[in-house]
Amino acid sequence: MSPGFAGNAPAVAAIDWGTTRLRAWLIDGSGKVLAERRGDDGLITAQQKGFSTLLEGHLAAMGASAELPVIICGMAGSRQGWLEAPYVAVPAPLGAVLAGAARVPGQNRDIRIVPGLAQRLADAPDVMRGEETQLAGAGLPARGSELVCMPGTHSKWVQVEDGAVAGFGTWPTGELFSVLAAHSILKHSLGEHPAPVAVDSPFFRQWCERALGEGGDVTSKLFAIRAAGLLQDLKSEDAAACLSGLLIGGEIASAKRRYGAGDAPVVLISSGALASLYSAALGLAGLAFRSVDADEAVRAGLIEAARENGMIARTGALA
Amino acid sequence: MSPGFAGNAPAVAAIDWGTTRLRAWLIDGSGKVLAERRGDDGLITAQQKGFSTLLEGHLAAMGASAELPVIICGMAGSRQGWLEAPYVAVPAPLGAVLAGAARVPGQNRDIRIVPGLAQRLADAPDVMRGEETQLAGAGLPARGSELVCMPGTHSKWVQVEDGAVAGFGTWPTGELFSVLAAHSILKHSLGEHPAPVAVDSPFFRQWCERALGEGGDVTSKLFAIRAAGLLQDLKSEDAAACLSGLLIGGEIASAKRRYGAGDAPVVLISSGALASLYSAALGLAGLAFRSVDADEAVRAGLIEAARENGMIARTGALA
Repeated sequence: MSPGFAGNAPAVAAIDWGTTRLRAWLIDGSGKVLAERRGDDGLITAQQKGFSTLLEGHLAAMGASAELPVIICGMAGSRQGWLEAPYVAVPAPLGAVLAGAARVPGQNRDIRIVPGLAQRLADAPDVMRGEETQLAGAGLPARGSELVCMPGTHSKWVQVEDGAVAGFGTWPTGELFSVLAAHSILKHSLGEHPAPVAVDSPFFRQWCERALGEGGDVTSKLFAIRAAGLLQDLKSEDAAACLSGLLIGGEIASAKRRYGAGDAPVVLISSGALASLYSAALGLAGLAFRSVDADEAVRAGLIEAARENGMIARTGALA
Repeated sequence: MSPGFAGNAPAVAAIDWGTTRLRAWLIDGSGKVLAERRGDDGLITAQQKGFSTLLEGHLAAMGASAELPVIICGMAGSRQGWLEAPYVAVPAPLGAVLAGAARVPGQNRDIRIVPGLAQRLADAPDVMRGEETQLAGAGLPARGSELVCMPGTHSKWVQVEDGAVAGFGTWPTGELFSVLAAHSILKHSLGEHPAPVAVDSPFFRQWCERALGEGGDVTSKLFAIRAAGLLQDLKSEDAAACLSGLLIGGEIASAKRRYGAGDAPVVLISSGALASLYSAALGLAGLAFRSVDADEAVRAGLIEAARENGMIARTGALA
């Protein structure tokens, strides 16, 4: 038993390693969380400082032993990452995806990276990395159809059938917000430091509703935010709410058009401010939904991946 | 008669002064062009170096006299320009718009700036500056309904009824291309210096057709360009064609949805490479159109503005 972990020893380290962030947990053999760390050293930092160096630093800081195995999901498994964990083509059962984690060679410990998913359709190619692990940890039923919304920089909408990913799409909503706010003519409307968008902003709701009525057509309304600044004295904090409402409403309208509104409620996997905004927008769209916390989902998915790869035992309740 | 202008003396200088460019012509009393200059000293340069200094430099280089009157259209008339020429609200007859040019005070010569147009609708605010002059010079019939497409950084689609602007919309297609190519994840697909898009590129046509089938929904397909690079080995020059086709097709689909496909052919006011791309895209959309050269239209519009403001005589044929 490692010193410092009263009662339970860590059985695996679980790492969500994205483009800009890293989150790490130490997990015991029953799936219980013993320690947690968060850092800004995502893929971009790791490309410079080295993946192994960064990982070992986080593990040492959490008191992990030199033999503790590690399970990783996210962009660390991309071509620009530590080791390319080749995409699994959909349709794909989530359990089998997790079980196919790729082992990083030349390391003293057992380090594996969960593969991403690829949709190899000629007219709708798409990829995800990290979200497959969130999906596996979202507690979706083993039977039935689910439509899952995972908002973010590159929002994913996923069709899950009987525990397998049937298809998915990406809406770069978060990235569009950042890029348009910083580099387009809308920077004059939003100002240098766009205010966080309040979910109760009437501008967020109004522009979201406008977008919902346009079937995903966002580009025809972007310039109107600038014009509203010139003609209607729209304030910069309200302009940010307009842009957020327009882009989120547009994403939901577009996804609804592509996937239809099924019988089951949409599963919204998100956390923090984004969860509030998407909850409000799904409500405005008239879509029933149930919420799953994104942070908990990815951690539960990594624990499930550790089980699927034999790093911890199959039995034992989740933390 | 000024030295250097055999036969005809300049009666007015006509300036199209945009955000990044300036074009200047010397015009005789009959509307004939005597000299032309182009420069990169648009609004942004002028804000630093001074509007009067820049203008006088161009006029002197063309041999204009110190008394020659000047008519200007474009962003020089904006709030960030030389003198704000207040917007005229639509609906507005084009002749009356031109006649309302604002005189720049404190100048030795008569310098006037054509006002822009504002659409003061609560749910579709919009503005234009410069395009109103192009419209006036496009040779539109005095009677009947026309739908006009003016592609560019901020493309305008304009409904003209009996020579008056009834309404319009802006699609920031050119700006989206630039901003996404330079600052979004698509920069990895398009490369550092995106290739000019060839109108006969099968990628341009294919992605244009895809966008045309989506009613203006562009955001759902942006990430697919990145995914096609990862999964289908899409080359960078082809990625630029995909993005161009997607954005132009999306603009046309959206405008068609908003304005309908009327009986009369769309009037396409454009020039150069953009004219080729939009011609192809309008063809793919099944929209009949006739072409007007944008450079000639703005010059003809400025000459018309000079007439409306009494700077040159009403009679006399256009050059």
